[in-house]
Amino acid sequence: MAQAQKITPRAKDFSEWYGDVIMQAQLADYSPVRGCMVIRPHGYRIWELMQRALDDMFKATGHRNAYFPLFIPVSFLAKEAEHVEGFAKEVAVVTHTRLRATGKEGKDAIAVDPTSALEEPLVVRPTSETIIYAMFAKWIQSYRDLPLLLNQWCNVVRWEMRTRLFLRTTEFLWQEGHTAHATEAEAEAEARQILGVYRRFAEEWLAMPVLTGVKTESERFAGALRTYAIEALMQDNKALQGGTSHNLGQNFAKAFGVQYQTAAGGLEHVWNTSWGVSTRLIGGLIMTHSDDNGLVVPPRVAPVQVAIVPIWKTDEERSQVSGVGSQVKADLEKVGLRVELDLRDTMKPGAKYFEWEGLGVPVRLEIGPRDLASGQVVLARRTGGKAPVPLQGAPSAVTKALDEIQSGLFAAAKERREKASIRGVTKAQFIAFMNGEGGFAYGGFCGRASCEAEIKEQTNATVRVLPDPEFRSQEPPQTCMWCGAPSVAEAVWAQAY
Amino acid sequence: MAQAQKITPRAKDFSEWYGDVIMQAQLADYSPVRGCMVIRPHGYRIWELMQRALDDMFKATGHRNAYFPLFIPVSFLAKEAEHVEGFAKEVAVVTHTRLRATGKEGKDAIAVDPTSALEEPLVVRPTSETIIYAMFAKWIQSYRDLPLLLNQWCNVVRWEMRTRLFLRTTEFLWQEGHTAHATEAEAEAEARQILGVYRRFAEEWLAMPVLTGVKTESERFAGALRTYAIEALMQDNKALQGGTSHNLGQNFAKAFGVQYQTAAGGLEHVWNTSWGVSTRLIGGLIMTHSDDNGLVVPPRVAPVQVAIVPIWKTDEERSQVSGVGSQVKADLEKVGLRVELDLRDTMKPGAKYFEWEGLGVPVRLEIGPRDLASGQVVLARRTGGKAPVPLQGAPSAVTKALDEIQSGLFAAAKERREKASIRGVTKAQFIAFMNGEGGFAYGGFCGRASCEAEIKEQTNATVRVLPDPEFRSQEPPQTCMWCGAPSVAEAVWAQAY
Repeated sequence: MAQAQKITPRAKDFSEWYGDVIMQAQLADYSPVRGCMVIRPHGYRIWELMQRALDDMFKATGHRNAYFPLFIPVSFLAKEAEHVEGFAKEVAVVTHTRLRATGKEGKDAIAVDPTSALEEPLVVRPTSETIIYAMFAKWIQSYRDLPLLLNQWCNVVRWEMRTRLFLRTTEFLWQEGHTAHATEAEAEAEARQILGVYRRFAEEWLAMPVLTGVKTESERFAGALRTYAIEALMQDNKALQGGTSHNLGQNFAKAFGVQYQTAAGGLEHVWNTSWGVSTRLIGGLIMTHSDDNGLVVPPRVAPVQVAIVPIWKTDEERSQVSGVGSQVKADLEKVGLRVELDLRDTMKPGAKYFEWEGLGVPVRLEIGPRDLASGQVVLARRTGGKAPVPLQGAPSAVTKALDEIQSGLFAAAKERREKASIRGVTKAQFIAFMNGEGGFAYGGFCGRASCEAEIKEQTNATVRVLPDPEFRSQEPPQTCMWCGAPSVAEAVWAQAY
Repeated sequence: MAQAQKITPRAKDFSEWYGDVIMQAQLADYSPVRGCMVIRPHGYRIWELMQRALDDMFKATGHRNAYFPLFIPVSFLAKEAEHVEGFAKEVAVVTHTRLRATGKEGKDAIAVDPTSALEEPLVVRPTSETIIYAMFAKWIQSYRDLPLLLNQWCNVVRWEMRTRLFLRTTEFLWQEGHTAHATEAEAEAEARQILGVYRRFAEEWLAMPVLTGVKTESERFAGALRTYAIEALMQDNKALQGGTSHNLGQNFAKAFGVQYQTAAGGLEHVWNTSWGVSTRLIGGLIMTHSDDNGLVVPPRVAPVQVAIVPIWKTDEERSQVSGVGSQVKADLEKVGLRVELDLRDTMKPGAKYFEWEGLGVPVRLEIGPRDLASGQVVLARRTGGKAPVPLQGAPSAVTKALDEIQSGLFAAAKERREKASIRGVTKAQFIAFMNGEGGFAYGGFCGRASCEAEIKEQTNATVRVLPDPEFRSQEPPQTCMWCGAPSVAEAVWAQAY
């Protein structure tokens, strides 16, 4: 259970606030292993609910789960040049397989056994393209084996210098989809389809509005032809990349010899895609919805959707309200809701309210003797508002409230994002915007990496996406907002996590 | 889909047979990483169904899932003396965090960057007691924080010399439960409760009868007070340890300083338990039920429970039987079954039968034009037997067949185990038994490790458990079947995986 502690207000220090919300809700904790976090039960339950929803969407689109090794031989990583370049500086490397006693005391009593060195060191997967496509080469022979649509849920490790709970940790949990197709068009359609799945998941489940679009070359995945992404805007007006979907072209197929016999009898390389979202999304969810009172979780992924808090003074009242509380809990569970009935004797109702609030529970039902006398319970929303509802109609009132909270959170986040978006910026406006409140800046872009680098250096902003048509400005920009050269595409910039 | 290949008969070479069954059903594959396997979709789906069932049982007994770091500092492992002794010789050690280009060509182009050595090497978790109890020390202050009942689903790594798909792999997937309690009695009750959960899961879901009991000191988990286990007997009469539940006493609590304030105000160390089952159980499931035609999967964990194979010659017939097939599929799915309708044009019915059989699908429904004319379909069981059932009553006929197959598999496995069990053995009988057909040998045991060692050396048999009362012989043995000294407990020996 959460412990009462003071949460730093967002306006004072957003980063402190973020850490406080996580600690109060006991979502995660720092571990003794540098950069690695512990995901505590309340945080892990959110992840499980996210997994369930995403996994159903993957399966509905024909994907199957599998599991590939944690370790990747160094030589495999090296087979795709850009790929190894992208990951070489942040991999955990396994070099030995035994420890031995040193004869010393205490913490130095045990050390690596130098006689156990591996012939070829192994990298702990930072992502699994190389090991998976090595297996694809074994499994795919003919066009009949295509498309091959796999996904795996696993842990990955990237040796990060600066870490932050959920957002950037050395080890994190994710899913990585890997597919092989007969044609470029099919791979492109798959990468696009998954981008749509990610968007739907972010918006419908996490109530987190996102922009979709393609990354520039400098922000592209190491080894990809094209990288698509969903991008959300946090309450501090910094962007968060929520998920990426890559059209890998034939790069990995060529590096690993993944070929198939066509119907006509020829031999072709397959076209691959890969795509992933991670526990980072939990960080995004926190920074999108939570407030100065603590965590706010959208109902669809809330571990507890309804907390029932009976109120009593006498033993007789206790027996009465807890009896009704149990009945209401059963009624709510019957319609599929996740409910807790808080009968703790050691806490006053106010302290319980505070605790459930900090845990982000969307709806609280208060049941007191006076409420019962008038045949009602009080329904309090985590997002504000409190009103009596008839006891008999509790399930439908709660369901309605949860639906409204879910859509209300999405609408509020979208409104906030739009308020923090500026279109058709000039260079001067852009600099002022990025030095000021920040947000999504839409403007013309010449497409040159040199311009991107200069912008990043001077404003710390990066191109988040070249947005899909739906998000583009009505007036297409004619010139690069930074250098004045002809614009090749509209871009959305922001400072980002 | 499975490829037709010849399966080595069990009688000829059990180990070859085992590998052939896995390959034909595409459950798993060898990877390029020594000792690590790839779990393919059909195998992974079995694991998912097993996970779901077990996870529900853990949650129903008050456990919550969490996630702890993959890496463990070497000094943590060293804190519990027996524990490090048990695992030091089989751990993957991370020593570096970067790779760099060497200037060479090909596979040697990239190597470990020697300037990236870690100050303290990290071990890839072989099990997580040490890292988890380090966190418990932070979280547990008072008796109010107890019991703490956690579980995690994750991968672990033990550097094994000889590996075999599912049964013994360098990396494997498992769950590990970790709990803390205020008293020894509560910890003991928890370890026992979980042993019961494991037994119920093995018997009711995997149709795998197990013995339960306690391990001898030499077979105990490194650092435990007592280790309980479920033990099954495979078709080659070798035993398989299916899961273990450990009462850890206060060993880890003392090593990691996990203390709590009692209600009376004193300070005490907590009592821990840990327990786990792994993907090894998939190996057990294969070796318990499958036959010379390939995989047999008990219905409750079968990825596909029913394969519908329509039979046609003409286009008109195809349209007719596939229409009915779709309807039957929908009807079966309505009652919660996992169903595939096989409409492939490229294969004949016989080849389809063969394939579904090799995948272990419990029930096959054949729908031909003649069946339709008489208002029936043919229901074929993977375990033998084929009979027409009325089309209208298909869901109830299939459900009944699946129930019978599930209980039939359990009964057959139990009968086989009992036939391969011998009670009240003398030393001479024991040696003959272990040199002959083998199985579970029940006999008196003096309790001495020296006797166990001698028995193992001469017969390769080990004490699987000192069985729980339910499994003990009616006549308690008086003397050690090996050395003739007074017996302290009846033991069950077997050669084991």
